[in-house]
Amino acid sequence: MQKTVLVPITHGTEELEAVTIIDLLRRADISVVIAGEFEVNVCAHGVKIISDKLLSDISEGALFDAVVLPGGGGVVSLVLNEDLKKILENHRERGRLIAAICAAPRILAAHGLLEPGQDITSYPSEEELLRKNYNYLMEAVVKNADIITSRGPATAFAFSLKIIETLMGQSVRESVEDSTLWNKL
Amino acid sequence: MQKTVLVPITHGTEELEAVTIIDLLRRADISVVIAGEFEVNVCAHGVKIISDKLLSDISEGALFDAVVLPGGGGVVSLVLNEDLKKILENHRERGRLIAAICAAPRILAAHGLLEPGQDITSYPSEEELLRKNYNYLMEAVVKNADIITSRGPATAFAFSLKIIETLMGQSVRESVEDSTLWNKL
Repeated sequence: MQKTVLVPITHGTEELEAVTIIDLLRRADISVVIAGEFEVNVCAHGVKIISDKLLSDISEGALFDAVVLPGGGGVVSLVLNEDLKKILENHRERGRLIAAICAAPRILAAHGLLEPGQDITSYPSEEELLRKNYNYLMEAVVKNADIITSRGPATAFAFSLKIIETLMGQSVRESVEDSTLWNKL
Repeated sequence: MQKTVLVPITHGTEELEAVTIIDLLRRADISVVIAGEFEVNVCAHGVKIISDKLLSDISEGALFDAVVLPGGGGVVSLVLNEDLKKILENHRERGRLIAAICAAPRILAAHGLLEPGQDITSYPSEEELLRKNYNYLMEAVVKNADIITSRGPATAFAFSLKIIETLMGQSVRESVEDSTLWNKL
């Protein structure tokens, strides 16, 4: 069965992060659904991305192999989205992978999806908030049980490769590293 | 005067490359026009990006500070686009910066915009073609006079930073490195 991943986006989503995630996961033959709060999402730097589906059309019980949350100012809207909250709670209960980059780890904290003291990272803007309850690390990508977090635009590539490795294994990760020239730098 | 950059896209454009370029250049306060062959461009991995303008609506004499060409299968279409050919020839004649990543250096070669023997790089698919007339280098980013070339998705970030450095100077480059956490890795 092909692996499936939900990538929620909205106005203000960091487009470099969102598109890096979507592009690399699709290169790994993962079925990625871009689920937007809007049909056309005007991202943080003005790139207009059309949703594959509306986030409100994802059924409450829909189950993906992972939910991956890009950052940017759009996190302010996503954190208030009740549909997304239910989707995330359902995936957490069922032990599915949840990944968040940049400002998006705030969404995981807001919905109580993290264990007290667990390893986490984020964009520096979220550090003070997250340090209160979690073991905050200054690493590009942090994996702790079924949660992967990462820091920002410059770590989006490594973040996506870690998700691929987790869902698809090391050899698929290496094939994506090959086709993108990641391992040629 | 705010610097201006044209980024041509089409169906099959490598979206990670296109969006990395657009996002980072806009972070550098450069005015970026996403000029598509279509109103909605279905990129190489299915991301649908809406054009700011149609490429056919860019007037022949329009002059930007740079034209930056993303790669992907869309290069097969862009290399045949007569509007783009005229835009590139005009920018080359006037000594404006032209940059191309991945498969896109093929467009520069096809239109005779490169000097024989000049330093160049590209995605490996273009290496054999380009080696015939140019000094092909296996480096992530190659700058030679008013031409910048780069290799593929994994080098798009460094490619964009080199364009920012060239158009805006070292301090603006560093501010983008800061905000994206590039210099924190």
